[in-house]
Amino acid sequence: FWTTFYRTPVSEEFAGGYPSDEEWHGYISNSDRVLLKTINFASPNSAGAVCIDPACTWVEQWVHRAGPREKIYFKPEEVKAAIVTCGGLCPGLNDVIRQVVITLEIYGVKSIVGIPFGYRGFSDSDLSEMPLSRKVVQNIHLSGGSLLGVSRGGPSVSDIVDRMQEKGINMLFVLGGNGTHAGANAIHEECRKRKLKVAVVGVPKTIDNDILLMDKTFGFDTAVEEAQRAINSAYIEAHSAYHGVGIVKLMGRDSGFIAMHASLASGQIDICLIPEVPFELHGPHGVLTHLKYLIETKGSAVVCVAEGAGQNLLQKTNAKDASGNIVLGDIGVHIQQETKKYFREIGVHADVKYIDPTYMIRACRANASDGILCAVLGQNAVHGAFAGYSGITVGICNNHLIYVGSCT
Amino acid sequence: FWTTFYRTPVSEEFAGGYPSDEEWHGYISNSDRVLLKTINFASPNSAGAVCIDPACTWVEQWVHRAGPREKIYFKPEEVKAAIVTCGGLCPGLNDVIRQVVITLEIYGVKSIVGIPFGYRGFSDSDLSEMPLSRKVVQNIHLSGGSLLGVSRGGPSVSDIVDRMQEKGINMLFVLGGNGTHAGANAIHEECRKRKLKVAVVGVPKTIDNDILLMDKTFGFDTAVEEAQRAINSAYIEAHSAYHGVGIVKLMGRDSGFIAMHASLASGQIDICLIPEVPFELHGPHGVLTHLKYLIETKGSAVVCVAEGAGQNLLQKTNAKDASGNIVLGDIGVHIQQETKKYFREIGVHADVKYIDPTYMIRACRANASDGILCAVLGQNAVHGAFAGYSGITVGICNNHLIYVGSCT
Amino acid sequence: FWTTFYRTPVSEEFAGGYPSDEEWHGYISNSDRVLLKTINFASPNSAGAVCIDPACTWVEQWVHRAGPREKIYFKPEEVKAAIVTCGGLCPGLNDVIRQVVITLEIYGVKSIVGIPFGYRGFSDSDLSEMPLSRKVVQNIHLSGGSLLGVSRGGPSVSDIVDRMQEKGINMLFVLGGNGTHAGANAIHEECRKRKLKVAVVGVPKTIDNDILLMDKTFGFDTAVEEAQRAINSAYIEAHSAYHGVGIVKLMGRDSGFIAMHASLASGQIDICLIPEVPFELHGPHGVLTHLKYLIETKGSAVVCVAEGAGQNLLQKTNAKDASGNIVLGDIGVHIQQETKKYFREIGVHADVKYIDPTYMIRACRANASDGILCAVLGQNAVHGAFAGYSGITVGICNNHLIYVGSCT
Amino acid sequence: FWTTFYRTPVSEEFAGGYPSDEEWHGYISNSDRVLLKTINFASPNSAGAVCIDPACTWVEQWVHRAGPREKIYFKPEEVKAAIVTCGGLCPGLNDVIRQVVITLEIYGVKSIVGIPFGYRGFSDSDLSEMPLSRKVVQNIHLSGGSLLGVSRGGPSVSDIVDRMQEKGINMLFVLGGNGTHAGANAIHEECRKRKLKVAVVGVPKTIDNDILLMDKTFGFDTAVEEAQRAINSAYIEAHSAYHGVGIVKLMGRDSGFIAMHASLASGQIDICLIPEVPFELHGPHGVLTHLKYLIETKGSAVVCVAEGAGQNLLQKTNAKDASGNIVLGDIGVHIQQETKKYFREIGVHADVKYIDPTYMIRACRANASDGILCAVLGQNAVHGAFAGYSGITVGICNNHLIYVGSCT
Repeated sequence: FWTTFYRTPVSEEFAGGYPSDEEWHGYISNSDRVLLKTINFASPNSAGAVCIDPACTWVEQWVHRAGPREKIYFKPEEVKAAIVTCGGLCPGLNDVIRQVVITLEIYGVKSIVGIPFGYRGFSDSDLSEMPLSRKVVQNIHLSGGSLLGVSRGGPSVSDIVDRMQEKGINMLFVLGGNGTHAGANAIHEECRKRKLKVAVVGVPKTIDNDILLMDKTFGFDTAVEEAQRAINSAYIEAHSAYHGVGIVKLMGRDSGFIAMHASLASGQIDICLIPEVPFELHGPHGVLTHLKYLIETKGSAVVCVAEGAGQNLLQKTNAKDASGNIVLGDIGVHIQQETKKYFREIGVHADVKYIDPTYMIRACRANASDGILCAVLGQNAVHGAFAGYSGITVGICNNHLIYVGSCT
Repeated sequence: FWTTFYRTPVSEEFAGGYPSDEEWHGYISNSDRVLLKTINFASPNSAGAVCIDPACTWVEQWVHRAGPREKIYFKPEEVKAAIVTCGGLCPGLNDVIRQVVITLEIYGVKSIVGIPFGYRGFSDSDLSEMPLSRKVVQNIHLSGGSLLGVSRGGPSVSDIVDRMQEKGINMLFVLGGNGTHAGANAIHEECRKRKLKVAVVGVPKTIDNDILLMDKTFGFDTAVEEAQRAINSAYIEAHSAYHGVGIVKLMGRDSGFIAMHASLASGQIDICLIPEVPFELHGPHGVLTHLKYLIETKGSAVVCVAEGAGQNLLQKTNAKDASGNIVLGDIGVHIQQETKKYFREIGVHADVKYIDPTYMIRACRANASDGILCAVLGQNAVHGAFAGYSGITVGICNNHLIYVGSCT
Repeated sequence: FWTTFYRTPVSEEFAGGYPSDEEWHGYISNSDRVLLKTINFASPNSAGAVCIDPACTWVEQWVHRAGPREKIYFKPEEVKAAIVTCGGLCPGLNDVIRQVVITLEIYGVKSIVGIPFGYRGFSDSDLSEMPLSRKVVQNIHLSGGSLLGVSRGGPSVSDIVDRMQEKGINMLFVLGGNGTHAGANAIHEECRKRKLKVAVVGVPKTIDNDILLMDKTFGFDTAVEEAQRAINSAYIEAHSAYHGVGIVKLMGRDSGFIAMHASLASGQIDICLIPEVPFELHGPHGVLTHLKYLIETKGSAVVCVAEGAGQNLLQKTNAKDASGNIVLGDIGVHIQQETKKYFREIGVHADVKYIDPTYMIRACRANASDGILCAVLGQNAVHGAFAGYSGITVGICNNHLIYVGSCT
Repeated sequence: FWTTFYRTPVSEEFAGGYPSDEEWHGYISNSDRVLLKTINFASPNSAGAVCIDPACTWVEQWVHRAGPREKIYFKPEEVKAAIVTCGGLCPGLNDVIRQVVITLEIYGVKSIVGIPFGYRGFSDSDLSEMPLSRKVVQNIHLSGGSLLGVSRGGPSVSDIVDRMQEKGINMLFVLGGNGTHAGANAIHEECRKRKLKVAVVGVPKTIDNDILLMDKTFGFDTAVEEAQRAINSAYIEAHSAYHGVGIVKLMGRDSGFIAMHASLASGQIDICLIPEVPFELHGPHGVLTHLKYLIETKGSAVVCVAEGAGQNLLQKTNAKDASGNIVLGDIGVHIQQETKKYFREIGVHADVKYIDPTYMIRACRANASDGILCAVLGQNAVHGAFAGYSGITVGICNNHLIYVGSCT
């Protein structure tokens, strides 16, 4: 039900004018597709094989290719775009904000605002929207955090859409995790219900890199890089101490990507514990027995543990944070305490040092690799909104940018 | 014509013994395959479309999956493995060396040596092979360069194979660029001709990331990251000067990946010049006219140029280096001089600063992302040799490790 | 001829009010003094001895102590303060600007401006002064360069003072080198001649650290720190090459402090060449002979050379830059070329790599140590101006802040 | 009672031989002196004045100048030197070890060993001394920690001296804190009592920089530099959160130097709490009231607290660690908890983040400034031992190297 506008290359005078090029192919076709699965397992016995039938047949699965379309569904001068960042910090938030703003300006959008402190900014009357422009965002990617501020929770979907109508927002870019995306989808549905011409586009923010469909999520690469400092410190402390044990806790609620990649990159980790692989602390096959073995043979040991690992070893709480995430027990502190206790009990000297670098990692600015990822995600979020998609998420899959989700 | 040996999980006592697992699927099937192309263009007009027919039909292309095979073609105790690093420095050389050594030791290989200073080490009688072990390589990835040393050129293929026979080397891991790989292939062919049971496996080393088949080559990510320092310095110099122009030359003989990625990540580059896109310095559509426009409107400008860009603007030399690469004219210095001259001629003050960070980039240690890439490349190079492949190269394609090349 | 005002601790409500303290001693007495020389040489034969008589008698020499005075010579509400940064970039310029602004605001000054692009900003009608406040400068120290811009040269002293009168500037903070300070002193003299109540205070900016009276100048520590990257790169390149020679040129027109400190800190330099110590390249005691010795015995060598070293070996030019500095010949390039030539002539392979990191060093943000120095220099520059001093320079001597120069 | 040997410049062939220089003055006279106090306060009312009489008279106080003497008290070939590192980690330990070894080798000492894991290495029969040479220590300064390992506590002085006699150690270099130095002095006294010709020289190791006599101690500068990361993270977290409060705990048992310098350098700290200045958390002049004021006016706040600050607010324990240091209560955690509680009680939302970067700071390698300090301390420790001093400590005072302590 939306009219379309043709988008043509700018023709105004620019440093003497660009050469016209009638055969310029700069647009994406709506029918372009990107392949999801790129491996054909010969049999269910191949390492890592995931099969749908006994013959382990390979199935083509295609998703929409992201990018600029020639036909656009919004007149740029009628767009009021808003950006909101939700949840905890993640390296690259400012890079995405920056690129969304710059790309919107290139489309010709004049009215761009930031919603302060997550969805909370839609309800709290003390918080006024922040006008955004290239000038404002020019150098924000040089520091970590979020220019707009983040927070968890917020008002109801209905209240948010009311506020968007009041403010005349018809393009909403949402940066956040699972809960935030569920919210974004609900906003999209509510807008459809109210027959509003609004595009809601999500950019998934999960430092844990736990969206299996996508090659990686922004902030992950930076987190792995910064985790090296903590791991190296733990290694130095452990190796400089008599019977030193270094323990580093890294992010990863449901997946061990950060812990595993950081361990692999460092080459300094003896034991890496992740949520996907159950383990025991005590007993002949337990972590502590192996630590004893390492102390006896190498003189020191370094452990890396993902925050979501070994939750079965901790007393369960039913507490949830404002984003609806279950509050995890602190496995890092638990292992530290159990390690001290164990060595005390077996009468072996051990010097245990525990490092939790979480806040020092997530407050970092994006590294170059994440900076590039954020730039293309931000650009394609805007392309998606202008292409008339809503309720979508932008991501990278097999090195190509894609849109996933319900497409209008 | 090679016999095969079965490789089974180690059963010896290790911290109390591992639980046996009869259904453990840790091996790759020789028939596992990885897909090369993952995008289906709807038409030849889609951005970036490369088509084989007018309908732009998508064609499945599969390559061999890398990884450990259950059957191995060498008895570990009969292996003498050698590693050689050729060409110029690239971040990650030490990471690959380290992981090849560690993986060989895990297979049970006792005899591992490094060939000093590239292929030269096969001919120069002053240079003796360097014994390698986990202990030697444990922390070499913490510094840049190559433990073994690098050099260009070297003796004839026949001499190299003679020397390998003398020394009893039957596994050769070659880290190097195009010329080096051609050499490695010639060594492989010579070994076949002499009916020697020798595995020659290459790990492509090109900081330029100019192997289109592969997602990326090791060292590239680090180079882009480190280039940020130079770009930021050029930006600061340009913006702090009255009519400042900063020029940064980055690596990229035939491709602009480093220049383009570094520019995109930085958000601070006004003009990026790469080999793939021809340009003019002078004239109404030339770089200098645009620089004048930037100085007049923004007060400063920053240019990033790949070393191979604009070679048509320079006087040609026919000189080649010892690797057989054509010695390029210095486009960075040329642009610096032409810029100074141009502004002097048009009577506009300009303060031009030129930065060439090449050696400071390529001597860096690998960042975390490259560290991981090097680790898996090193592991899979060894898996490939033990699987009986020779004359192959290991790489990463659509996030999967692959072998390409002539496979025995 | 200036009236004085008493400065008393602020008494307004601040988070519940500070406790009054009648015995608070927070001010500096104008008669406080700091000692210049702190070593007593037993004889002229002691290492480094500088003596005024044959007995090498120690002489007390005292200078003025910097800091806040209780009596101030300007009513804050009548002050219009200006800050100007001249010459080339140096880490810490933004830190000093920031702290001058913050301290002025604490004194109660409302009118603070930045003069753009050095003294040029006093003459160029296109350049308007930049209003400064805590809000503007809050985070400028997080990036290198100068918020105000720098340049060399500028209008005549008389024109500058005319312009200051026009604009009503009665406090001028000048950040710059020798030439700039001579200018600042001339401005001070001209103001006295015109009987203007103007305070001119200099903060010496010389990354070379070549003011012997002072413990160190700002930016020097950062320069030494950043030079480590270049030296390490040269070391890695040299040690990874067959007969590798790495050459690093560092700043230091008349003094070798950066080169010497950077060499000492790195532990990786074999030969350090500085302006203070003459040397020969050729001949039996020349640098090249020693390089040959190093190549033969160690296999590689790394040279660090200060830009002002060995100028006698180069053809003299009489060119001067806009600051009046003689344009030095490029000793780094000269040594590189002579080294290549020498080894070619003696028929020994040598792989020479040359690194000039100058712009990448001076565009850096200040490290923590320089950040602190800049902060206290900025504070004490303002204290000096309010204390009624003009034509002074602020510095650090034997760990105490001092004022030197003609004091009114 | 020791005989002396004359030390003359090396005359052997070295790259063609050095020119002889009869007037070379490279030695320190035993009568050279360095001045301790360099400020003359005009009155007891001057800021920071410390006076000995009502007139605040300045008194000359001189200490011994460190450096090489022409007469040496050990024949290098008869020396067996040992190095031991005690207590916790501190950036620069490896730099000092390295320079002591290199300087000993330059004196001609052939027998140099490291005592593993502090004084414990003198008693534990499992731990054998580590042979040291330039080759071993060449690159150890590139990583943090201590090559020799550290630990607290150890055997009795008598046992240590027994062991030294057994092993023939007649030069002992001790790197450690207060307790370690007391031990070193006791070892020195015991050696005198036993009439052993042994030199015991201490290099003070206190990252806190709490030796007022000295300009600074090694590791301090690095600690302040590295603390910037933690402070910046806390700042980013606080400013990106709705009513964010960031709290950073830094080292400083009895002094606030690290906390104060790090706060000053960062420009991002609102409240800095140090042991020297008592404070209250609660009440109208308390920290929490000021935090509320900051949240209300700025929206966020960042607190830096030294570990030894506010100990009066915590329940006392009488526990001591193996070095004899009182185990401090955790003021950082206490402030975090009290802050959360306070804002909950007054019904104001606050998002409190706590960062303790201690291990990540002290495991760092020395920065350039500390690298230089460590190098000259290491050199002068050896000069002191060869000069026949024992029971001394080497340090830097008013930019000159000094020896303090009982001098034989």
